[in-house]
Amino acid sequence: MKVPSHRCRWATLPSPNAREAASMYGTAVAIFLVILVAALQGSAPAESPFPYRVPLDPEGTLELSWNVSYRQEVIHFQLLARALRAGLLFGMSDRGQLENADLVVLWTNGNSAYFADAWSDQKGKVHLDAQQDYQLLQAQRTPEGLSLLFKRPFATCDPKDYLIEDDTVHLVYGILEEPFQSLEAINTSGLQTGLQRVQLLKPELPIPNLPSDMPTMEIRVPNVLIPDNETTYWCYMKELQENFPSHHIVKYEAIITKGNEALVHHMEVFQCTDEVHSFPSYSGPCDSKMKPDRLNYCRHVLAAWALGAKPFYYPEEAGVPFGGPGSSRFLRLEVHYHNPRKMQGLRDSSGIRLYYTTRLRRFDAGIMELGLVYTPVMAIPPRERAFVLTGYCTDKCTQVALSPPGIHIFASQLHTHLTGRKVVTVLARDGREREIVNRDNHYSPHFQEIRMLRKTVFVKPGDVLITNCTYNTEERQQATVGGLGIQEEMCVNYVHYYPRTELELCKSAVDAGFLQKYFHMVDRFNDREVCTSPQASVPPQFASVPEQFASVPWNSFSSNVLAALYGYAPISMHCNKSSAVRFQGNWDLQPLPKVISTLEEPTPKCPTGQSPAGPTVVSITGGKS
Amino acid sequence: MKVPSHRCRWATLPSPNAREAASMYGTAVAIFLVILVAALQGSAPAESPFPYRVPLDPEGTLELSWNVSYRQEVIHFQLLARALRAGLLFGMSDRGQLENADLVVLWTNGNSAYFADAWSDQKGKVHLDAQQDYQLLQAQRTPEGLSLLFKRPFATCDPKDYLIEDDTVHLVYGILEEPFQSLEAINTSGLQTGLQRVQLLKPELPIPNLPSDMPTMEIRVPNVLIPDNETTYWCYMKELQENFPSHHIVKYEAIITKGNEALVHHMEVFQCTDEVHSFPSYSGPCDSKMKPDRLNYCRHVLAAWALGAKPFYYPEEAGVPFGGPGSSRFLRLEVHYHNPRKMQGLRDSSGIRLYYTTRLRRFDAGIMELGLVYTPVMAIPPRERAFVLTGYCTDKCTQVALSPPGIHIFASQLHTHLTGRKVVTVLARDGREREIVNRDNHYSPHFQEIRMLRKTVFVKPGDVLITNCTYNTEERQQATVGGLGIQEEMCVNYVHYYPRTELELCKSAVDAGFLQKYFHMVDRFNDREVCTSPQASVPPQFASVPEQFASVPWNSFSSNVLAALYGYAPISMHCNKSSAVRFQGNWDLQPLPKVISTLEEPTPKCPTGQSPAGPTVVSITGGKS
Repeated sequence: MKVPSHRCRWATLPSPNAREAASMYGTAVAIFLVILVAALQGSAPAESPFPYRVPLDPEGTLELSWNVSYRQEVIHFQLLARALRAGLLFGMSDRGQLENADLVVLWTNGNSAYFADAWSDQKGKVHLDAQQDYQLLQAQRTPEGLSLLFKRPFATCDPKDYLIEDDTVHLVYGILEEPFQSLEAINTSGLQTGLQRVQLLKPELPIPNLPSDMPTMEIRVPNVLIPDNETTYWCYMKELQENFPSHHIVKYEAIITKGNEALVHHMEVFQCTDEVHSFPSYSGPCDSKMKPDRLNYCRHVLAAWALGAKPFYYPEEAGVPFGGPGSSRFLRLEVHYHNPRKMQGLRDSSGIRLYYTTRLRRFDAGIMELGLVYTPVMAIPPRERAFVLTGYCTDKCTQVALSPPGIHIFASQLHTHLTGRKVVTVLARDGREREIVNRDNHYSPHFQEIRMLRKTVFVKPGDVLITNCTYNTEERQQATVGGLGIQEEMCVNYVHYYPRTELELCKSAVDAGFLQKYFHMVDRFNDREVCTSPQASVPPQFASVPEQFASVPWNSFSSNVLAALYGYAPISMHCNKSSAVRFQGNWDLQPLPKVISTLEEPTPKCPTGQSPAGPTVVSITGGKS
Repeated sequence: MKVPSHRCRWATLPSPNAREAASMYGTAVAIFLVILVAALQGSAPAESPFPYRVPLDPEGTLELSWNVSYRQEVIHFQLLARALRAGLLFGMSDRGQLENADLVVLWTNGNSAYFADAWSDQKGKVHLDAQQDYQLLQAQRTPEGLSLLFKRPFATCDPKDYLIEDDTVHLVYGILEEPFQSLEAINTSGLQTGLQRVQLLKPELPIPNLPSDMPTMEIRVPNVLIPDNETTYWCYMKELQENFPSHHIVKYEAIITKGNEALVHHMEVFQCTDEVHSFPSYSGPCDSKMKPDRLNYCRHVLAAWALGAKPFYYPEEAGVPFGGPGSSRFLRLEVHYHNPRKMQGLRDSSGIRLYYTTRLRRFDAGIMELGLVYTPVMAIPPRERAFVLTGYCTDKCTQVALSPPGIHIFASQLHTHLTGRKVVTVLARDGREREIVNRDNHYSPHFQEIRMLRKTVFVKPGDVLITNCTYNTEERQQATVGGLGIQEEMCVNYVHYYPRTELELCKSAVDAGFLQKYFHMVDRFNDREVCTSPQASVPPQFASVPEQFASVPWNSFSSNVLAALYGYAPISMHCNKSSAVRFQGNWDLQPLPKVISTLEEPTPKCPTGQSPAGPTVVSITGGKS
């Protein structure tokens, strides 16, 4: 065993066998685990070698720190357990469930204590892993609690282990309140358990140098009363001072009013078009009949934040243009409130803080929206475990809208509403998939970050960007249509790139006429006279698309035929400039991009080193901490 | 390392490091590999511990023997290479291709020789496996050639390795004619290569005791001229002597006329119904207009053989009834000739040799056909990589046709025509999948064996048997419909069971009326007036189903909608007695059996032992064999 990361300072760690010298103290009645690795006493790192840290449980009794060695493809974890009783489970699972989880278990049978790599079956029963891939390196009593240091390779090739990739990881934990005679006696269903979502494999990009002059500006809604509706998009107009000069935004971060953390779902700052020189002030719902029509001309994204995102830094060579001639002084802040309990009387002043500079960087940065148009024509049937919708940014659009040198995508924010489970954008060139722009196979709508890409993606005119979103509607009895509401769905990848172009939306939706063919087909297949549908009084040509979807008799046939339609029918493209204006061209009835070769799934590298065959045993003797 | 199998006699093998002591001799110009494992000289097994043996290449220069340890889940291979030049590749791949193959490589760079576990990528380039799972145990020069003894676990959990299961395995080989500077310099595309199909994991059932009296009867076509058509089903009537007493068939085997091995695709012996007391003699094509209509009354399968099958033994407690009162004296032999080159003038006397006895066994054995009815309503769209058709034996049929104690399936023969790639039959009870009856994930229509099951499957009245067949039609431009012709498709599992019941066919097909809805839907979706179809002069109601399929404009939509239809539409059941007569009941417009839980894929057991990290090196010095 080597101490892998230059960040780690426990260089005196003598050998893997040292862990066997660890000793634990407990009492028969209430067992306090005090694990002392004799050889390591006092050899804890002088300063934290772990750049990342999250609490696992709401009370913060379990705290996880970690670092990543990309060279060795290993993560070192430090788990601090405050006030531990008889042991704990920690691990990862597909979506945060404690069943079918990949676990490490620290447990005692009352006499001895053990540390082992384990897994739980679909009923939550815990089993020892045939291959022990979590390796205990240090166990130490600290003033704060028991600190366990262990490591695990990204990939273990043990079929019972979680494959750690650079997407969302659902960490899980469980607290053991009493001794267990054996590992196999543990069942996760009886324990206090929980989950925490993190990106374990953060790209290790340095924080860029920031300019010495860096004023900030806060764009916040003015102490609004959050409506007692499940979904509100609140619009607030902000006007910059006249003759506000050219700047580059180099960083921004969210400001969330304390107490409203769970209500503010996402926020965006849009710049208005500079073709219109005055905008009325406004603070109210974006879909209000009272809102000024001119708000529709404020669609150029300046900053986007969603639940879970951290401060955002632009690459050193790029910043977002802000102010100056040719740049509108008018900004629109849009705050999406998600208020499912329809709470009343809550006030909010959330918004975004921009950090900007007059020392303009070499390139302007921009944000482009990939995926699906927000339209009900893209719908997910009910009771589907993994229904995929696909949005296209076609070769024709990138050909028309990008200039020859192309663009560099450096960050990406994936976005769906509640039923989204996976999102991926792939770049295809000449009909062949070339590169993944961003992928999250464990996407959660409750953990939407803007993620810096480990490697900038270069997009040329003529390239195709294909965004797939996978939804789970097993709990729903009606179709879920596309739209703005939180109960509706989206499929969006906000990509951050430079140099900025006019292209702001490159999204698609199925052709509406082909969707009508689908409705007619399903009606005829079921031998239904159109007038027997629930909307009997509404002639079908006047029924809205959501109404038409609501009247589909959902079964495997109608669901699979809808999937077949989406995989075949021509699309309508939104190849749009910032001002809701399409680029010139015919964007309707476009053929689906043809992909003749797809990317192969990379084979995980399996660790070749020796691993212990069973649990690591440490002796427990009497005593109390 | 332990010598694992009691069948193996190389008990003096001292330690894994012994293989490093092996030495090889070669010359710079023509390299003859002579590998001598010093410690093993003279310790070769006195008798062959390998029950299975196949030639790998048509000339027999490479011969593989093997044995299986189910306890350790390990196969020992002995590969005999006659007249080897500079090395060889041996391994397994999904369907016999040399790309994406799991390989062992014995190669020389002119000075040293190496043995390594490797894999080939999709371009045929060879790479070293990160995990070395093939272990060389012995390398020995014998009078016949170089003999390599090595072992491999069934499952390695190396993602680059083939998972050895109890279905068809496509073994592959390649001959190295010259030294290679490194393993990575080898590309399979430049080599002399080939494949051989085997079932590596044969169930190790003892050959049952055979009765002391065991006369044989040969039922062979009478020196017929094989028609110069691609597909011929030849029918030949055989009459037993009068008063032929009751017997049990306990064994049968094929007799193939020498030289016709590639033409005789499959053969079956049917017994005629005992309700008809005389049959005309006949020898001619089964679909001839001249054939006696009464041949249709000869449908009770007595014996079935197909390409690749070995002699078949019935379990000691069962035999196939043959002769005696209530048993027809008339047999029909059906030989399926596959003559794609339309060769003329070939004569054939192939047939089946039955071994029978008067000492009747406890149970009568029977054969039942599961899967799909031979009907064009079940079709596969063109250009599909893996299209699945499903045939059902419904709970209603087993309830009506099986008597309460149920039946025991002891053998199974999977059958499709040329585009079949996988076949599996699963037993479901109370809506839950319980057990796999037989499965071949690497099924080849060129390797159809009757396979004894490792474990007898018990089927109760009310059970459901679901047979899935997966087809690859990437090379076809038209739909492939179900039917008897070799260019048409089948999906059949002939299960051999006891005690015999009246149920001989338990198969399904989609309801013909629902298929007509499909044709109409596709026509309307494409806005085609029906009269513009290729069969413009034929009103659609008079077009045959194959004609209707031929006029479908195949694309992802029409293909996926067909799959959706097959997954939803009601079925028509053939729940038939031996005499082409259905059991009483309504068998049309039956609902598809509901399956609420499916079997989980078993997790392969990964080997926990240590394996070498790289190639095993053996030194080569000058010399000549």
